[in-house]
Amino acid sequence: MPLSESALIERYFRTCGAQRPDVLAGIGDDAALLAVAPDAELVAATDTLVAGVHFPAGSPPASIGHRSLAVNLSDLAAMGARPAWALLALTLPDADEGWLAEFAAGFSALARAHEVALVGGDTTRGPLCVTVQLLGHVPRGEALRRCGARAGDVLFVSGTPGDAAAGLALEQGRLHASAAALAYLRERFLRPTPRIALGQRLRRHASACIDVSDGLLGDAGKLADASRAGVEISFGAVPVSETLLRTLGEERARELALTGGDDYELCFAVHAENLPALLAELPPHSWGYSRIGALRSAPGAVVVRDGTVMEFSHSGYQHFP
Amino acid sequence: MPLSESALIERYFRTCGAQRPDVLAGIGDDAALLAVAPDAELVAATDTLVAGVHFPAGSPPASIGHRSLAVNLSDLAAMGARPAWALLALTLPDADEGWLAEFAAGFSALARAHEVALVGGDTTRGPLCVTVQLLGHVPRGEALRRCGARAGDVLFVSGTPGDAAAGLALEQGRLHASAAALAYLRERFLRPTPRIALGQRLRRHASACIDVSDGLLGDAGKLADASRAGVEISFGAVPVSETLLRTLGEERARELALTGGDDYELCFAVHAENLPALLAELPPHSWGYSRIGALRSAPGAVVVRDGTVMEFSHSGYQHFP
Repeated sequence: MPLSESALIERYFRTCGAQRPDVLAGIGDDAALLAVAPDAELVAATDTLVAGVHFPAGSPPASIGHRSLAVNLSDLAAMGARPAWALLALTLPDADEGWLAEFAAGFSALARAHEVALVGGDTTRGPLCVTVQLLGHVPRGEALRRCGARAGDVLFVSGTPGDAAAGLALEQGRLHASAAALAYLRERFLRPTPRIALGQRLRRHASACIDVSDGLLGDAGKLADASRAGVEISFGAVPVSETLLRTLGEERARELALTGGDDYELCFAVHAENLPALLAELPPHSWGYSRIGALRSAPGAVVVRDGTVMEFSHSGYQHFP
Repeated sequence: MPLSESALIERYFRTCGAQRPDVLAGIGDDAALLAVAPDAELVAATDTLVAGVHFPAGSPPASIGHRSLAVNLSDLAAMGARPAWALLALTLPDADEGWLAEFAAGFSALARAHEVALVGGDTTRGPLCVTVQLLGHVPRGEALRRCGARAGDVLFVSGTPGDAAAGLALEQGRLHASAAALAYLRERFLRPTPRIALGQRLRRHASACIDVSDGLLGDAGKLADASRAGVEISFGAVPVSETLLRTLGEERARELALTGGDDYELCFAVHAENLPALLAELPPHSWGYSRIGALRSAPGAVVVRDGTVMEFSHSGYQHFP
């Protein structure tokens, strides 16, 4: 007998994610009822993953569950927020129990790792599409924004961008790599690591922050635009993984790191006078971030190599057109 | 030149809905930043509308915008909450500007009517699908739940259920009606009226409340289940509109009112001792609600006519199976 909507929710989502005492009413009523921490501001984000657009339709269900939450966690990380509660809107062509069990397991593992409770949602029939809304807290007045940087600030990025874009290209058969490289890069696409702990620590140091989802160059440009400044990135300073270097060579690896998308790393600016404290309290080699350039007064985002501005055909993923 | 994602957001959604002073950062950062009212609990709901499932693919775009918010407002109404902020996840096959302008106008008009600010979202390419997340407030400890009713409570429903289901059947050519009836019923499907004011007033009176989205009989059963009770509805007491009566005849009209779905009315229970205050403070003819039955100790939801329990082939809309 096929699974009813309420049985599906009961079986796979009722106990998904963390249990939190601030959930006054979770799944099972018309809406969730939540106790917001005093002296905190609420932070809210939503992101959608569409099958065939954001992930290949045949991706492992656990990775879709993981990614649907990870992309939202990354948005909260960029605000310096602590995540708390998620709502899940899941549109499915059919109620495949094996698929649902794996999807829920992938979602739940990441949710528990970040103490996120699944407090509500909606399950509907249609083309596979997952929208997660994530709510969290930030101490009053302390949120990281895109708009606080100024000319002279130093620009950083976490992790090794480009890996996820290479992983997607491998998934889609547009790229070939050694078996070891394939496993690593594929994993970077399928299971991005939201930089929640780094985002929270950066509240004390960064002047502005953005999550890198559409490509480092384009997203750094958005941070600069919001701050009414420009940004200059040094091509040779863009961090790339050993695996990406071996797979693509240095030139193509750094290009992909600048334009690839799906990284879910943090790009952040720091006032020059705050650099010593940042480097002392969050050592780059421990926290996994790299200095890649600086904010400048001239608008726009440019990449410089050997004193020359480079041209890129595009600077990030665009849904429209 | 086709519209970019950021231009699309800027043009149609930046100023959509109400302006609110408690929005510290709205559209344009990684996440929205919101000031929660002190002494309030946060209420959060999400609902998805899928083209071809929840509405015919060719529905007027303004009605899709309206409905996508209305179905979530209805969830908050059922909690007795005051809505505040919405996030919109919009998946579109293409960036048709005429469609977007009408969709945004329909969404914005209803949002402004209920002082809801659009504070964030995501626009993606894919099969048409709209997910709204709605956040609001309820005074601490005062939320209406599904679970507070007990045997002996009187059961009510607002409005005239069944109209929307008839409107959908007309849209789909499964039903025929006079031109005047068609216009009225179609409008009840395309532009449901969330009962926000009634929900807030019911906090003082109702023991339990649910929004009627999947069919009155099934949803009344969910309220009873959550309250560990049963419910008995009197067939002759189910309110139906004159238009539905004329279109379907009494028998089919009341059946559709019990099983149809898409009503977005409130079904609520009131302890017998609280009836005089309810009827005095919220006169049924002014507030548009009707007494339809009572909670009982035996579990399940039944409809009674002339002392006999009626059989229904189904009691509400099921996405799976």
